[in-house]
Amino acid sequence: MQLDVVGSRCFGTVSPVKTDNSPARGTRDLLPDTVTVRDRVLASICEVYRRYGYQRIETPALEDLARLTGGQGGENEKLIYRVLRRGLAETVAADTPLTDLTDLGLRFDLTVPLTRFYGNNHAALPAPFRSFQFGPVWRAERPQRGRYRQFYQCDIDLLGERSVLAEVELIEATTEALAATGLTGTTVRVSDRRFLSALAAALGLPEEAWDGLFITVDKLDRIGWTGVSAELVERGVTEEQVGRLRDTLDTLGGTAADGGDKLAAALAATVPGIGDEVLADLSATAATLTELAGARDLAWVFDPTLVRGMGYYTGQIFEVTHPASSGSVAGGGRYDRLIGRSLGRDVPACGFSIGFERIVDLLEAARTEDRLALLVESAVPLPDVLAAARRLRADGRSVSVVPRTGRFAAQLGRLTDWGFTGFAQLRVGDAGTEEIAERRLDLKDGGSRSG
Amino acid sequence: MQLDVVGSRCFGTVSPVKTDNSPARGTRDLLPDTVTVRDRVLASICEVYRRYGYQRIETPALEDLARLTGGQGGENEKLIYRVLRRGLAETVAADTPLTDLTDLGLRFDLTVPLTRFYGNNHAALPAPFRSFQFGPVWRAERPQRGRYRQFYQCDIDLLGERSVLAEVELIEATTEALAATGLTGTTVRVSDRRFLSALAAALGLPEEAWDGLFITVDKLDRIGWTGVSAELVERGVTEEQVGRLRDTLDTLGGTAADGGDKLAAALAATVPGIGDEVLADLSATAATLTELAGARDLAWVFDPTLVRGMGYYTGQIFEVTHPASSGSVAGGGRYDRLIGRSLGRDVPACGFSIGFERIVDLLEAARTEDRLALLVESAVPLPDVLAAARRLRADGRSVSVVPRTGRFAAQLGRLTDWGFTGFAQLRVGDAGTEEIAERRLDLKDGGSRSG
Repeated sequence: MQLDVVGSRCFGTVSPVKTDNSPARGTRDLLPDTVTVRDRVLASICEVYRRYGYQRIETPALEDLARLTGGQGGENEKLIYRVLRRGLAETVAADTPLTDLTDLGLRFDLTVPLTRFYGNNHAALPAPFRSFQFGPVWRAERPQRGRYRQFYQCDIDLLGERSVLAEVELIEATTEALAATGLTGTTVRVSDRRFLSALAAALGLPEEAWDGLFITVDKLDRIGWTGVSAELVERGVTEEQVGRLRDTLDTLGGTAADGGDKLAAALAATVPGIGDEVLADLSATAATLTELAGARDLAWVFDPTLVRGMGYYTGQIFEVTHPASSGSVAGGGRYDRLIGRSLGRDVPACGFSIGFERIVDLLEAARTEDRLALLVESAVPLPDVLAAARRLRADGRSVSVVPRTGRFAAQLGRLTDWGFTGFAQLRVGDAGTEEIAERRLDLKDGGSRSG
Repeated sequence: MQLDVVGSRCFGTVSPVKTDNSPARGTRDLLPDTVTVRDRVLASICEVYRRYGYQRIETPALEDLARLTGGQGGENEKLIYRVLRRGLAETVAADTPLTDLTDLGLRFDLTVPLTRFYGNNHAALPAPFRSFQFGPVWRAERPQRGRYRQFYQCDIDLLGERSVLAEVELIEATTEALAATGLTGTTVRVSDRRFLSALAAALGLPEEAWDGLFITVDKLDRIGWTGVSAELVERGVTEEQVGRLRDTLDTLGGTAADGGDKLAAALAATVPGIGDEVLADLSATAATLTELAGARDLAWVFDPTLVRGMGYYTGQIFEVTHPASSGSVAGGGRYDRLIGRSLGRDVPACGFSIGFERIVDLLEAARTEDRLALLVESAVPLPDVLAAARRLRADGRSVSVVPRTGRFAAQLGRLTDWGFTGFAQLRVGDAGTEEIAERRLDLKDGGSRSG
């Protein structure tokens, strides 16, 4: 129902609605069981990030199209839902470019809005600022199974912290948040864009060829060394350079993840020209990860083939994987030159995104909620119904009043199907309203969970 | 940061973003303090509705335009953000109607989506179904102070319950939810569309004139009886009919709200032709409200001038007011002929909408969160920082690591401004890292809360 905020009026007849009730193409309805799991996952994540000092912010779903198409979003900019300007004539003049008709778009990620948000509000925010965002984003992708055009992202970002404290705090908080949702046994994969750049330089590649190199190396887990070699040669990399690249990546990929010093030594030995700061930062991250791995059900590796897609990363990059998921369940990194762009100065930044939808898919909808149905015969007086429901709710339980209808066993089956875990009854006996004590509902009571 | 779900790539240069960082016209950013209040209000409401058996559902923000413009939304249908079809040629041919260019729109309320949702999913839902929705809606209104083009609605609806149990349960749950947010001392105003129809019939007005009568009567609190009389006469109502209307409304408006029987008697006496079922339902609601008003800080009145805007109401209607707000803080009613329309049968329905944005505006951002800043000198080794932060977080507190910079008093002032409630310090002394015990931050420490 709508609270009448606007004072709009509508007493006329309403035309019939077509009978196809599907949601818009590529989107979906979320039913109660699904929402329960999602809310539980979100609450677990929120609670961990709150303890680390992260504060939730929210930006509007709509942003100016000029901002959304500024180049920061890569391929996602082609998937924007564009919104028609208001107040246009109902017929379009000849040769009008579509761009004249639109001014806004639905956001495709939470990073473009965060950049704008920080530019707009930085004077009122703590420094460093710990941002937590959770909200829907929209991408007009080709519909495929399990992928939706509206989905939720869950990002934390630490803005204004130049030191490696940012990286290690984000890793510690995010792996703890993942564990809180039930995802233990994760593996953190670490690399550094500065390492990749030093590697490309050491190979003797010109700077303008580096991005191409990274894009190809990033495909290694999908197309293997055969595919990568072919693609690199096509990009103008020599066979000899490909060979040296492969040797280096193989050597470093085997580096034992047992502390920072060994990794730094291996990097210094194999990638001449890698900066001391890069080595020190990676050592610090490695030391923290080794400590965390000793204390929790967590592993880590230095993964020299890790690239991560977005072009804005400037330092360490991360992915978190879990045995039950083929893709990563979280990822992020340092991006020092993005947030401050509209302010005319660099604002150091490091962020992590949790793959919320992927995690929800991994966690089965467990029927753990206690939900009581109060079955009521139609002859029971309303005040007795209300009084019994209030009494049962008094200790915080969820109690739904349900009219008693049809065959008893069949109704119990339906209650089970609907996710109720128990029922009590009110009926009219010789001495007035009688309450029949509560019973558990088990799946054997007839529920097929099929709806 | 963005989890790379799509595999999009972007290593190119990024064009400079314009330096105006305002959100899109008519929308706003939500800063941490505001989000904290909003989350607290929402959690209070959720917890109460959960106990009454309401289950949260979610529908996509985008709906087919044909559905959004089906007539159910009244004036709101003129305020829809329309979305461009994907895959259009970049130049529009002559005389193309705008309607050919668009297919989707952003929802303007949660009721149209609920109707579609129930049609799409009713087979898998409990009967009766208790729905709880919370989410953003969009209306391209003329921007005004305190009103935004994206705002949140908070609706509960009981679908499939024909009896007055629905009305009394919704009233009890909603007033309890409002009290849980901190809004005690509310007044519930009650009327019934069937009473208004009987009244219009008793005046001798033809049925096609009833809606006009209701629309005008609804303006009584704004334009008074002088304005209402003039408008009714303009609509063709005679002076004599206006006089009888005013007498009836005055008489009934003075009915003491002390139980159901007196109200029913007064209605039966003043509105011949009002149905027995209408009287019985209003009696039941009145009895429950009288009982609730005796047990809680709550008042109620029968308000015969209450109309409520939307045309879909078919029975009892409600508004909840609070002394601190000029408008209502919640409203709703029965609408038996809307939900089932796409199913080809009536589905009895009753709903309540809480004015979430209005309530958040009423509740000042109280600085009640415990947030500790751990001030760290740059020379403190990172492992010591992490260890101290972990220890302070162990009992669930929010702890933010903040570098120690500038004049001490000035930094404490900034911490206070940023909403921290206390600070501890780490520094390097003769014996290594020293922790200086926690101190409270009070507003007198320099904070102006101005940001």
